[in-house]
Amino acid sequence: MRATVLHATRDIRLEDVDDPQLFEDGDALVRVVAACICGSDLWPYRGLPEVSGPGRIGHEFVGIVEATGSAVQTVSPGDFVIAPFVISDNTCELCRRGMHTSCVNGAAWGAEDRAGHMVDGGQGEVVRVPLADGTLVATPGQPDESLIPHLLTLSDVYPTGHHAALSAGVTAGSTVAVVGDGAVGLSAVLAAKRLGADRVVSMSRHEDRQRVAREFGADEIVAERGKDGAAAVKEIFGGIGADHVLECVGTQDSMKQAMLSTRPGGRVGFVGLPHGVELNVRVMFGLNIGVVGGVAPARAYIEELLPGVLDGTVTPGLVFDQTLPLDKVADGYQAMDERAAIKTMLST
Amino acid sequence: MRATVLHATRDIRLEDVDDPQLFEDGDALVRVVAACICGSDLWPYRGLPEVSGPGRIGHEFVGIVEATGSAVQTVSPGDFVIAPFVISDNTCELCRRGMHTSCVNGAAWGAEDRAGHMVDGGQGEVVRVPLADGTLVATPGQPDESLIPHLLTLSDVYPTGHHAALSAGVTAGSTVAVVGDGAVGLSAVLAAKRLGADRVVSMSRHEDRQRVAREFGADEIVAERGKDGAAAVKEIFGGIGADHVLECVGTQDSMKQAMLSTRPGGRVGFVGLPHGVELNVRVMFGLNIGVVGGVAPARAYIEELLPGVLDGTVTPGLVFDQTLPLDKVADGYQAMDERAAIKTMLST
Repeated sequence: MRATVLHATRDIRLEDVDDPQLFEDGDALVRVVAACICGSDLWPYRGLPEVSGPGRIGHEFVGIVEATGSAVQTVSPGDFVIAPFVISDNTCELCRRGMHTSCVNGAAWGAEDRAGHMVDGGQGEVVRVPLADGTLVATPGQPDESLIPHLLTLSDVYPTGHHAALSAGVTAGSTVAVVGDGAVGLSAVLAAKRLGADRVVSMSRHEDRQRVAREFGADEIVAERGKDGAAAVKEIFGGIGADHVLECVGTQDSMKQAMLSTRPGGRVGFVGLPHGVELNVRVMFGLNIGVVGGVAPARAYIEELLPGVLDGTVTPGLVFDQTLPLDKVADGYQAMDERAAIKTMLST
Repeated sequence: MRATVLHATRDIRLEDVDDPQLFEDGDALVRVVAACICGSDLWPYRGLPEVSGPGRIGHEFVGIVEATGSAVQTVSPGDFVIAPFVISDNTCELCRRGMHTSCVNGAAWGAEDRAGHMVDGGQGEVVRVPLADGTLVATPGQPDESLIPHLLTLSDVYPTGHHAALSAGVTAGSTVAVVGDGAVGLSAVLAAKRLGADRVVSMSRHEDRQRVAREFGADEIVAERGKDGAAAVKEIFGGIGADHVLECVGTQDSMKQAMLSTRPGGRVGFVGLPHGVELNVRVMFGLNIGVVGGVAPARAYIEELLPGVLDGTVTPGLVFDQTLPLDKVADGYQAMDERAAIKTMLST
């Protein structure tokens, strides 16, 4: 079969690799229907950190179960399944508390699992899924093809936006600002509105992204950044700032933007993988601005978010503004690297 | 009248000062019945930072209203009142959100108010209270003398413990660990149990403080610190750590202790004034450990906490293990500085 391999900085290729096989009784093999490229995939693609050798990549995919180990009970060959971006057993103490990303038996796509076998990356034709019962969520029946992009977002970006909103404490009636207009930031707008936020500001400078933010329910767009951006957010929210700010980038600038835009006593929900972020603890303390978030336990949220996707209430797949066949994966990385695409879907 | 003045590092004296007077229509004069020394008063007492000249000190007191300005409506001469440790109007956008410590018209004891008048410190015989309607809370009738220490804790330390618990998200059934066995840490134990926490661990090495922690409802005591302490907390809580950890000290060591003792997906509530605290953002992100807290809006909580104090359900005044007359204030500072006393009450 063919799978995406990152060889070196900006050297990414689809190439022939060994067919995956069932190693453990709890494994399943899934033929990928659609995968996608994550903003976080761009970090190693850009050499941050530099890759030390060829490695599989990709952690967002949906597909059809091809085979299952003898212990697998919740999915069967032929099922359409969503694979969240972390492998988990869904039964341990931490999974039961909704913290699947800290599963005591967990593993990551493209890395070694607890049994010592390499796991395939998601940007390939077939993927071996360890802990298939815990990890995979099957849809009821085969979804219509038009739903594929929306279902694919359940593997990462939509639950990650949801996690930002939950971490920040968004509830019905909240005032919200979202820092970042990438796929996660846009998903955070959608998630905040779904949770009943009263007014959501999307901080975005790009017209195409502003359009998606509006489609997702953003009430206001703020194009300014830095102090001007924070001042604009404050003005919108009674001069004091937003109750909840969703930080969806992961840089020092974006975190600072988030802190500046939050009202005293408010909370920042952060889901952007932090690179060089330092928190000003004295400011947090003096203004009672909390910082909560992290790597999103997507698995914990799929059952809750799936019905709205299936019935068309939400259309999170609008974050995909480019679809390429899998053998054009390198073009997809380039487009996202150059911000020519918000997010690229790969069809097999 | 006499008031406490900090002249230089460890040079603190009760001395004659001008009698306070009503400057603004919203002012009240309060004759202090009892005041106390705060752990945070020890920072300037110890020269951190060094004081630049003589200054009034103290921000926790209860007393009897002696006089009120013409605009004061909610308290009258003769009322017994609790003064929270920050002056606020209780009506602005931020006060209405319970964030009285960020009141847009707020001020601090011992500093200049918004009208440009110096405000008295709390460790004196009489105090001018700006924004008296917003700041002061009167008890229904005159309290019995035995209640004075308990009522005095409502000015700071008990609401601060409550704020730690709320910030960490403590609710019924929670598992909680409290870092710090000072008056705030002990109050946090009391507050967490009051909020219905299932099991509360107090991290304490001092027998006298352990006793108070037990009186306040602590289910377990952990005397170890550092990694051993965190391991002990984890063992108590199913091998994963506490859902909520209340950081009540404010040093790098105590914050690290708190982070190490929190389970993935849990939250640290911090109320210890941070000195040199740096947060490991990558750890927060990877384990989804949130950090929420700050200077406690005591005013926001007094109405909620007062009934339990009045009816004896809680006895937060047990944190006072030393009572001195006001003219022995210097001895009180020395005792707390040397950790010979948990917290010192000053009676007038």
